[in-house]
Amino acid sequence: MIPPNAFAPLSHGGDLDAARKLFPGAPEPFLDLSTAINPHPYPIPDVWPEDFARLPDAESLKRLTGNAATAYAAPSEDNVVPAPGSQILMTLIAGLVPPGRAAILGPTYAEHARVAALAGHEVTTAPELAPLGEANLAIVVNPNNPDGRVFGKGELLRIAEKQRDRGGLLVVDEAFMDAGPRGESLSLHVEDANVIVLRSFGKFFGLAGIRLSFALAATELAARLRASLGPWPVSGPALAIGKAALWDWDWIDAARLSLGRAAVRLERLLQDAGLESVGHTELFHLVRSPEAPQIFERLGRAGIFVRRFEEDPQLLRFGLPGEEAAWQRLEAALRT
Amino acid sequence: MIPPNAFAPLSHGGDLDAARKLFPGAPEPFLDLSTAINPHPYPIPDVWPEDFARLPDAESLKRLTGNAATAYAAPSEDNVVPAPGSQILMTLIAGLVPPGRAAILGPTYAEHARVAALAGHEVTTAPELAPLGEANLAIVVNPNNPDGRVFGKGELLRIAEKQRDRGGLLVVDEAFMDAGPRGESLSLHVEDANVIVLRSFGKFFGLAGIRLSFALAATELAARLRASLGPWPVSGPALAIGKAALWDWDWIDAARLSLGRAAVRLERLLQDAGLESVGHTELFHLVRSPEAPQIFERLGRAGIFVRRFEEDPQLLRFGLPGEEAAWQRLEAALRT
Repeated sequence: MIPPNAFAPLSHGGDLDAARKLFPGAPEPFLDLSTAINPHPYPIPDVWPEDFARLPDAESLKRLTGNAATAYAAPSEDNVVPAPGSQILMTLIAGLVPPGRAAILGPTYAEHARVAALAGHEVTTAPELAPLGEANLAIVVNPNNPDGRVFGKGELLRIAEKQRDRGGLLVVDEAFMDAGPRGESLSLHVEDANVIVLRSFGKFFGLAGIRLSFALAATELAARLRASLGPWPVSGPALAIGKAALWDWDWIDAARLSLGRAAVRLERLLQDAGLESVGHTELFHLVRSPEAPQIFERLGRAGIFVRRFEEDPQLLRFGLPGEEAAWQRLEAALRT
Repeated sequence: MIPPNAFAPLSHGGDLDAARKLFPGAPEPFLDLSTAINPHPYPIPDVWPEDFARLPDAESLKRLTGNAATAYAAPSEDNVVPAPGSQILMTLIAGLVPPGRAAILGPTYAEHARVAALAGHEVTTAPELAPLGEANLAIVVNPNNPDGRVFGKGELLRIAEKQRDRGGLLVVDEAFMDAGPRGESLSLHVEDANVIVLRSFGKFFGLAGIRLSFALAATELAARLRASLGPWPVSGPALAIGKAALWDWDWIDAARLSLGRAAVRLERLLQDAGLESVGHTELFHLVRSPEAPQIFERLGRAGIFVRRFEEDPQLLRFGLPGEEAAWQRLEAALRT
């Protein structure tokens, strides 16, 4: 039995239309800090009319896959599956395991639970890793969203081993790994360790609109996912942009540095406003405050949209401002 | 048991890298007539950096869905599911029916059989509609590719009824319907008739690279497909382009007319070269000739790439040339 709420859309950050309805008099343009996306996008390379018109060609797809294998440190390009976003990969992966028990390290990105339920799994959420070993499908977001918790490679590999014994699978969503503790990535272990890793292109490269993600998996599972997605899994513009960006090591290194600095600046700015960060990645800070609902309102009326959480109204998540004016706008709005 | 060939990539039109390997000395640029895509694309409207950077917003997705419902004459926007191409819809739809017998009207677009086998169905191909009633999943491409056969609404609805009795489903892939006999589309019947219709944006609008397609289905099935694809099924650029194009009635009417004229011109040109069309839609002509392999070679050496078929070497499919120079190049190459 699939629970009816597996069909209902969840609320997410980035919905400025919702923000405008909540705060109709707010000054425009809205400053959207409700998502966790690099505010300084990779400069879009030449995208030609051909990229829109023609079917994406097999050779470019191979180049993209190879560049992703290198950038994400996968064993080989046979382990890499390009896809139009992580969502469809989550659906396909949840279907690789016969319906059983899915255990998710959480609270976390809510789509994982919805998609696992849709695939027919009975879903539980656990605040620690240990219970995940007992499920048939274990899912961890590492670093976790929204609390920024990082799990060590060793403890995750132990969960994957337990999964293997029961014919299950560990999925590690590394959407926030690019700017984070890359040494804890399981990408290099996907061939042997009974784990599938998800990597998001859009967050780190600031281009969430092109819909590009990758599954890193054992050769056989990767072939299965590739076969499900078909011969043209990714759009022409996403191919053109993705293959350039994933090979641009200077930009990648510079972005890691500047995101790290911006995250420190955001933490200080929040601290100066009396808000303590209780969790973070390089792309967001999470604060806890009994006044969170009032702060959400005050920022909203000033045209600044942050992420609140229905299930815990004391939490607010702040993405990174981009331009200097945006930083000052946030600082001023928090001060009033 | 999933047959191993369900994992192997099939060969398709549009693979110019393959053409270049086959004909290394051919004059560039290649004239690619191996696909069946409108050679005069919809003029790309303003696509902003925001469309690449931000997550596609819910309001735009709703607009796209509404415009598609009108353009394709679906009962309502609740029946419309936007997706990044028909391939992933085929995979998800094949999974809606418990593994059983899939029957496909064929020969046809080969991905349908591959994807049905991947979902665990035992696949047969039938040259007529009648046997499709006995399967659990029936698939018809209408008009069919590559022979252009058109099936009437009434006969398809009867197959769908038989499917209902056995808990099955009829899938009608109307990828070539936009320029064709739209009166035979089943789009208006998806709520009640136990049928899912697939519509491709890229062929008619000449923008196959943006990856945009739609499933038209009963409200409940549509909700299920939408839930599997998640909140951001389509890229920002595809959203921006799709919602403009599907509302541009003047362009749509003009394109139908000019594609019809181009198809007639292509038929005459082939006739003058001694090649008789044995099937067509407004986007391609299929010819049968004992000399097909030689013609394929001769055209290839002249830098013109057409579609051949492994399973029947006497067939060649010709897409439409675009510019006047391309028409003359084809005419000259066929004459030599």
